[in-house]
Amino acid sequence: MSAVAVRAMFRSHPEKPAHAEAISRCIDACFSCVETCTACADACLAERDIEHLVPCMRLNLDCAAVCNATGSIMARANKAGHRQLLEAQLANCIAFCRACASECASHAEMHRHCRVCAEACTACAEACTSMLDAMRMPA
Amino acid sequence: MSAVAVRAMFRSHPEKPAHAEAISRCIDACFSCVETCTACADACLAERDIEHLVPCMRLNLDCAAVCNATGSIMARANKAGHRQLLEAQLANCIAFCRACASECASHAEMHRHCRVCAEACTACAEACTSMLDAMRMPA
Amino acid sequence: MSAVAVRAMFRSHPEKPAHAEAISRCIDACFSCVETCTACADACLAERDIEHLVPCMRLNLDCAAVCNATGSIMARANKAGHRQLLEAQLANCIAFCRACASECASHAEMHRHCRVCAEACTACAEACTSMLDAMRMPA
Amino acid sequence: MSAVAVRAMFRSHPEKPAHAEAISRCIDACFSCVETCTACADACLAERDIEHLVPCMRLNLDCAAVCNATGSIMARANKAGHRQLLEAQLANCIAFCRACASECASHAEMHRHCRVCAEACTACAEACTSMLDAMRMPA
Repeated sequence: MSAVAVRAMFRSHPEKPAHAEAISRCIDACFSCVETCTACADACLAERDIEHLVPCMRLNLDCAAVCNATGSIMARANKAGHRQLLEAQLANCIAFCRACASECASHAEMHRHCRVCAEACTACAEACTSMLDAMRMPA
Repeated sequence: MSAVAVRAMFRSHPEKPAHAEAISRCIDACFSCVETCTACADACLAERDIEHLVPCMRLNLDCAAVCNATGSIMARANKAGHRQLLEAQLANCIAFCRACASECASHAEMHRHCRVCAEACTACAEACTSMLDAMRMPA
Repeated sequence: MSAVAVRAMFRSHPEKPAHAEAISRCIDACFSCVETCTACADACLAERDIEHLVPCMRLNLDCAAVCNATGSIMARANKAGHRQLLEAQLANCIAFCRACASECASHAEMHRHCRVCAEACTACAEACTSMLDAMRMPA
Repeated sequence: MSAVAVRAMFRSHPEKPAHAEAISRCIDACFSCVETCTACADACLAERDIEHLVPCMRLNLDCAAVCNATGSIMARANKAGHRQLLEAQLANCIAFCRACASECASHAEMHRHCRVCAEACTACAEACTSMLDAMRMPA
């Protein structure tokens, strides 16, 4: 549902941003990742082998923070002359998402919430990669 | 898509939170509102009658901030003894969402992005209201 | 240092907001509380009796989220006709700060970081209360 | 004041993080930058030549988002094996702070709030650079 709303936003943006579809999917994947990472950190807190999960919770919270910033920045994506900043933010976001996906995947068999979280992180990394690709193509 | 992910998270949360469905929809509506309010503030910046839209942009940014906090807090909803805090946060979020929806609706005919944003704010207020109702019902 | 910067910001704000001093202290106390609550949650993760600290970590993260929203909203405090929203946000922030201060204080003797965090939460609740008082006084 | 609090936090962190002083100053500079950038965006909204300030407001909001994430991530700085993520986040934060400082400095003579904001952004870039330097030195 939220993907629909954000897509409608960019279709009605007065500046008619290029790559509206890639931007919409990127923003939506970022906030979906915020949701799942925040919820995964909380689910980890409720597990028995909680000490084992400390690195996971830290990466969950970090990944949520970076994806929150990325989603917000991509909603202001029309920044003439600041393409490098956007590319750096996206590359950074991809790195955190991949690290969190990898950590969560390492105990996905024991904790289903970590499996769901790994999938959301991977999807976000992919949406950010598609966004980078779109930005680098001739318009 | 993100509603699906967050719902799967709460189904696999070790504490089996009551109202998992209402929580999932509430979190998802909050972050959808973060997306649309952030994008609406940016679309307003690109309009010609920008000075007329200053109150709208301020409410957009406020509403995004409150919904971000609410979504994050609801992802940690299992707080024995802190039901009053959750209720206060939800009531506060509803107030900001309604104020932003009302402001955006007042120029929805001129700016389609404001119409989309008003709908997302209204949907978020409704999801928070359903969450409050669920919390107040006997389990 | 940051209090100095934000105070200088409000002195140079074109709308000459009433209560610039109270706003500056409120914003600064909010973000100081974001810092200490975020750091306290992480310090708790590194303690041995971590399971005992789960309610503390959840309140730390909630309090950081609410204070972040409050600080951001107070930086846009000049909202004609929206005094009720500001008051509701401040009251809500005070409630979270007091709950977190109380939880942290309950194990302040064992964990010095919880004592520091309780102090920051109490200071934030006080700054928000002063802000509310200033808003309710005749200008 | 907040620098004092966050420093006390890291002195009492059970993991005794290396570089506690650099971390404390980095976190504090990040949240001071969040405060000033958020307030500068709002002060810009109240200026007369608001259309001229659109790029400034966008960078203000972006810089606030990145510094918020960086401050939060640095509060969880003890991440064995994830030094690269921290370095990427710091480098990214420095880039946004410098871009925002440069934009704000370009109209600092007309708008005092932009001058204050440019100083906070520059101070944040410096604190992040010192943090990077500390991490790269042999412990």
